[in-house]
Amino acid sequence: MKLYGYFRSSAAYRVRIALNLKGIDAEQASIHLRKGEQKQPPFAAINPQKFVPVLVDGDVSLTQSLAIVEYLEETHPQPPLLPADPAGRARVRALALAVACDIHPLNNLRILNYLKDPLGHDEATRNAWYRHWVAEGFAALEAMLAGDPATGRFCHGDAPTLADVCLVPQVANAERFDCDLAPYPTIRRIAEAARALPAFAAAAPEKQPDAE
Amino acid sequence: MKLYGYFRSSAAYRVRIALNLKGIDAEQASIHLRKGEQKQPPFAAINPQKFVPVLVDGDVSLTQSLAIVEYLEETHPQPPLLPADPAGRARVRALALAVACDIHPLNNLRILNYLKDPLGHDEATRNAWYRHWVAEGFAALEAMLAGDPATGRFCHGDAPTLADVCLVPQVANAERFDCDLAPYPTIRRIAEAARALPAFAAAAPEKQPDAE
Repeated sequence: MKLYGYFRSSAAYRVRIALNLKGIDAEQASIHLRKGEQKQPPFAAINPQKFVPVLVDGDVSLTQSLAIVEYLEETHPQPPLLPADPAGRARVRALALAVACDIHPLNNLRILNYLKDPLGHDEATRNAWYRHWVAEGFAALEAMLAGDPATGRFCHGDAPTLADVCLVPQVANAERFDCDLAPYPTIRRIAEAARALPAFAAAAPEKQPDAE
Repeated sequence: MKLYGYFRSSAAYRVRIALNLKGIDAEQASIHLRKGEQKQPPFAAINPQKFVPVLVDGDVSLTQSLAIVEYLEETHPQPPLLPADPAGRARVRALALAVACDIHPLNNLRILNYLKDPLGHDEATRNAWYRHWVAEGFAALEAMLAGDPATGRFCHGDAPTLADVCLVPQVANAERFDCDLAPYPTIRRIAEAARALPAFAAAAPEKQPDAE
């Protein structure tokens, strides 16, 4: 397999974690997002959305990190990243989507760029925007996790799932933007437990060959 | 089952379509988003994210529209809303996520509210924001659909899938905000075919008991 990613892309970071958890070796190709390589050929022809990650598996080209992880789950079921019961699977997916739909897209580079130009907002206002959506999203996630007996050492039970795969990169982003994580003790505890696993540690942005 | 929704919520609209396609009867409870009922008890205790939809199935309470549709797919497999092959399933999920992650969250009511206060933008600027992200997202979706032989009468083949379940509510939103859909003939063709199906037609916002 070949993974088109970028060290700092948190969606690519999710896929790196999942590949590591599944024990799948993938060649990595770096697409430099800050230089705009995702908008140029040859990458723009690989993914019309002009986003990383893209995972190529033989003649199948896959986009969207959550769709990629579900594909890995179906083609490489061990170890599972979703529980066996439909209600548990729905809870894990909901936790993952609470990050992937309701936090991450609002704070993507293209949004921060639009806030700068054309909207004309300075860095302090853009950072306040960033922290606002992290705070809203993490407050909800903390309640979803802390208030549910299904939460264990990780987001769902005592083994990592798709929910942790999404949570850890979001925590790393929040730290990079100096978000206050004190109000979210369950999120911090789970992120710490997950990052102690080699599969998560090796996927961290600073460990990637294209890290700056 | 009981669905907490709102006629104009496009995430609730997705679940209404999926329930109809599966032939599942669900009691509907309306949570008035513009009046802020989602932030008040009793609903805020049902979903810490304070979003609709929530689907209650016996003692299971489900959040996040895509997780809900996956749950329905697992518990009520017929008719399928995902193809049988992993690559096809990944394509359908990627199309759905291209709406659910990369268009819809940017144009949610809470975002438009933040652009108004504290950011101070007028309605014209907020509408330009809305249309910008629809145009970016639909241009990518149009390329993903028009350039792939797997696209059929619907987003993937000739039966509706999770991708159509997400596409149609986004098209309805785009129309409501007077977005120019002329550049997206494949999206328009598929949306028209889907809306002609009773399951989609009955789920439309204007057909709901709480429609204004």
